[in-house]
Amino acid sequence: MQSNVTDFYVGKRVMVTGGLGFIGSNLAECLVNLGAEVLLVDSLVRDTGANPHNIAPIRDRVTTRTVDVRDVLAMERLVVGQEVIFNLAGQVSHLDSMRDPFTDLDINCRAPLSLLEACRYRNPGAKVIFASTRQIYGKPDYLPVDERHLLHPTDVNGVNKMAGEWYHVLYYNVYGVPACSLRLTNTYGPRMLVRNNRQTFIGPFVKQIVDGQEIELFGDGAQLRDLTYIDDVCEAFLLAGASDAANGEVFNLGGSEPISLRDLTQLLIEVAGGGSYRLVPFPEDRKAIDIGSFYSDFTKIRRTLGWKPRVSLREGLERTVAFYREHRTAYWSDEWRN
Amino acid sequence: MQSNVTDFYVGKRVMVTGGLGFIGSNLAECLVNLGAEVLLVDSLVRDTGANPHNIAPIRDRVTTRTVDVRDVLAMERLVVGQEVIFNLAGQVSHLDSMRDPFTDLDINCRAPLSLLEACRYRNPGAKVIFASTRQIYGKPDYLPVDERHLLHPTDVNGVNKMAGEWYHVLYYNVYGVPACSLRLTNTYGPRMLVRNNRQTFIGPFVKQIVDGQEIELFGDGAQLRDLTYIDDVCEAFLLAGASDAANGEVFNLGGSEPISLRDLTQLLIEVAGGGSYRLVPFPEDRKAIDIGSFYSDFTKIRRTLGWKPRVSLREGLERTVAFYREHRTAYWSDEWRN
Repeated sequence: MQSNVTDFYVGKRVMVTGGLGFIGSNLAECLVNLGAEVLLVDSLVRDTGANPHNIAPIRDRVTTRTVDVRDVLAMERLVVGQEVIFNLAGQVSHLDSMRDPFTDLDINCRAPLSLLEACRYRNPGAKVIFASTRQIYGKPDYLPVDERHLLHPTDVNGVNKMAGEWYHVLYYNVYGVPACSLRLTNTYGPRMLVRNNRQTFIGPFVKQIVDGQEIELFGDGAQLRDLTYIDDVCEAFLLAGASDAANGEVFNLGGSEPISLRDLTQLLIEVAGGGSYRLVPFPEDRKAIDIGSFYSDFTKIRRTLGWKPRVSLREGLERTVAFYREHRTAYWSDEWRN
Repeated sequence: MQSNVTDFYVGKRVMVTGGLGFIGSNLAECLVNLGAEVLLVDSLVRDTGANPHNIAPIRDRVTTRTVDVRDVLAMERLVVGQEVIFNLAGQVSHLDSMRDPFTDLDINCRAPLSLLEACRYRNPGAKVIFASTRQIYGKPDYLPVDERHLLHPTDVNGVNKMAGEWYHVLYYNVYGVPACSLRLTNTYGPRMLVRNNRQTFIGPFVKQIVDGQEIELFGDGAQLRDLTYIDDVCEAFLLAGASDAANGEVFNLGGSEPISLRDLTQLLIEVAGGGSYRLVPFPEDRKAIDIGSFYSDFTKIRRTLGWKPRVSLREGLERTVAFYREHRTAYWSDEWRN
């Protein structure tokens, strides 16, 4: 990591929403190791990536609050005094957003707006980094997709994240709140949600392979995707949080090697030392909102913040499989709720 | 008007939200004259364009309901049986959206979503035409602005309208609800709100000129704008409502003659037979969200639906000034509330 970043976080008061989730908990571990004073906020909503096991290694070195980002008054109090806010709390399931668009609206659109309003009035100097998504681009007009690509989301989740992201740009432009947004592609790695496919498709694949089950791949598996390993995503957030050049900007993340889902599955099988997959037809509800092939151009963040993905897909998958072989009891079910 | 359009509305059940407002009431008059069975829905929210005088000529030929589009259950009942829904209800003030972003979110983002959800479950064949705005483009990257221009809104109103519009596209793509969106530029003409500048800047100009007061123009008046006369806007809505080619699409409207605000003011003075204006500095809150010069390319709707603006600016301003000279008591205040 760049030394200006490692120095930046020493003693900084940092809040992470969605802090017990996949990215939030990994980011929290980085922040703790960099010497930040970390507050994790999470609603622990069922079926999301929130999992107390995610913060097992750092439990004694962070403060946690079970608060929903939709709770405006609670969030107003929590933003006070924070120097950097990583706003990662989100509803991430595309299908859930179609079944219940209002919950998605409240979490992905209204809650970020209210967090920014809280900053505007209570803490306008707080740096806010929003976790956006490639989903806002919809089905690509061209590949790779850069930040000049039109936004034409194909599902409610994409529409709401698009709005949620744009509040950040305008709260910087109008009020000077130093906010920015990272458009994540497929993030994978230790602590991702594997019990269901709400967060990623690759989570359940890893669970199936560790369990010795056959992987089910939708369609012909020819769709291309780029994947970013969790450590690279955390580095992007840390860089954006530490840099004034990020203010008011949106940045694509990306992966080094676009790969078809079929090749990805084969690589996973190879890395795991065995397994199998079969192609199954696309379920109708997924097909209606599928975006086909997608991979991004991350030139802007490379030039502006010096970020690029560093962990190869093979290495990332190896670390991921090893993690879940070791920690399966913590991730196979949500028995921790009982 | 094209004959396929005039025939289309005979006996059709049509709902207009914001039906007592500027565009809604003019559109309602067209619909009544075309033989449609018209239901007007309006919340009569204070300081908006809603005004019972707007429907004076057609009061006995329409049904009206005082319902807020944010009232989900009421709207669910009202959509049933409607064949065409013109969804014009909106919060249109850019400054109000910055002062109270949540009300703007509820009206411009959540309410259109809930109307579409109501159609999805109760009336999926209903045609829905949404009134969007050029505000979603923000400060233009190039002129004239076509529909391929990136959306980068500069105020909360623009973000929420952007989301509100995109639900329409995806409800058509995913559920087949025949929805579409018109991106209005500056609409002007009889029945526009003149008591304040929440709806247009030109409304208060007309009031000032009719009152013999000096017009106050922000900045140097060099910003270019295109204006669409209300009758042309109504025709665009009627065409979109009657055409399957509009489904799932977004269309810019526009004016025939981009004009600087200074020249527009001079033309207004000329048409009115006298008056004066002076330049005043931009208020800070307006300057922060100003978009500079804007005019649109409306080639897409011209090619797809055969629409183009037909009323010249001079003629439109003449009709507008004449209307307010005749009807000033009905528009100068909102005494009708008492």
